[in-house]
Amino acid sequence: MTTISIIGSGNMAAAIGTRAAKHGHAVEFMSRNNAKAQALADQIGNGATVGTFGARPAGGIVILAVLYSGAVEVVKHYGDALTGKTLVDITNPFNVDASGVVTTPGNSVSEQIAAAAAEDAHVVKAFNTIFGGVIAQDKPTDVFFAGDSAEAKSRVAAFLESLGMRPLDAGGLKMAHALEWAGILLVGLASNGAGFDIAFGAELL
Amino acid sequence: MTTISIIGSGNMAAAIGTRAAKHGHAVEFMSRNNAKAQALADQIGNGATVGTFGARPAGGIVILAVLYSGAVEVVKHYGDALTGKTLVDITNPFNVDASGVVTTPGNSVSEQIAAAAAEDAHVVKAFNTIFGGVIAQDKPTDVFFAGDSAEAKSRVAAFLESLGMRPLDAGGLKMAHALEWAGILLVGLASNGAGFDIAFGAELL
Repeated sequence: MTTISIIGSGNMAAAIGTRAAKHGHAVEFMSRNNAKAQALADQIGNGATVGTFGARPAGGIVILAVLYSGAVEVVKHYGDALTGKTLVDITNPFNVDASGVVTTPGNSVSEQIAAAAAEDAHVVKAFNTIFGGVIAQDKPTDVFFAGDSAEAKSRVAAFLESLGMRPLDAGGLKMAHALEWAGILLVGLASNGAGFDIAFGAELL
Repeated sequence: MTTISIIGSGNMAAAIGTRAAKHGHAVEFMSRNNAKAQALADQIGNGATVGTFGARPAGGIVILAVLYSGAVEVVKHYGDALTGKTLVDITNPFNVDASGVVTTPGNSVSEQIAAAAAEDAHVVKAFNTIFGGVIAQDKPTDVFFAGDSAEAKSRVAAFLESLGMRPLDAGGLKMAHALEWAGILLVGLASNGAGFDIAFGAELL
């Protein structure tokens, strides 16, 4: 069991938090909307708690379950409170019609977060190529992730495995942009016949 | 049975041509290197033939199995000989270390080919997110594709199904750039532990 801190109180926060709690983790929600975080913690139960938005998270893994447009600001707001933490960026910086991303190569949200974060914090991109509704189904799925810190990646991989997911390493943090485009591809496939109950996988033949 | 024309005589031409011939299609190779195309046709057998590079292809589906850097030039060289054809762009415009692509949103190789092609030719991006070695294994896999012409896409989807593959529509041709980034992601996963015997899939849960 690990303590997992989740910043945010929306759909992805709920999906990841529910699955983490179900698999025995202590989940802490932190949100600008404290009432919503409390409602989420109450709904999930299993000892889920609410922390103060902006204070030092209890978990070694901190999941940034906020919209991409606010992620850097949130990390700056936390500042040194994130020292030593593994920050998981799950954001999808989609443009208006989800035909592309608003980030550019070398400047993915993950890389922006890494630049803004406390020096000892390490960013891992994960969960952005899997629908919240699929996470909530609690079935085995593959999860792609990327990051520069081997230690942070190994921590996230162990967390994913504990959720019944198969972590697949895509490489360094510069691969986060490829993951952002994979988010676009996933929505493209879902919207063009495959439906939203799909999960990306990398089948070993 | 359909006639499939393949422009190129490299690894991807061999992999797709072999699989197509095995599944009953008449395969025509066209290459600047005529001797190499002939050797490939001989090796594959099953009635595989060689056409003249630059002449009108026999197949309704024409697979551009050339390097990305030469694809637009080849299409220009063919000119009106490609009128009415379904052009399949399989290219991966990787940068030097395969950490990104050299194309930009709205200017994928597929879109460049569409702009250069005969007016009545329709471009479909496909096969770029699956390794040649995996195609050659002749196992069931998913194949992502994108294009603006419903008719061309339906033709390509039927061809993919005939090869024992599951075609998954990612949307219009502007999604070709997302597919190009998916090629990067595939190589990233393969190089970081998953190995090169993997195939992308979109599992229905």
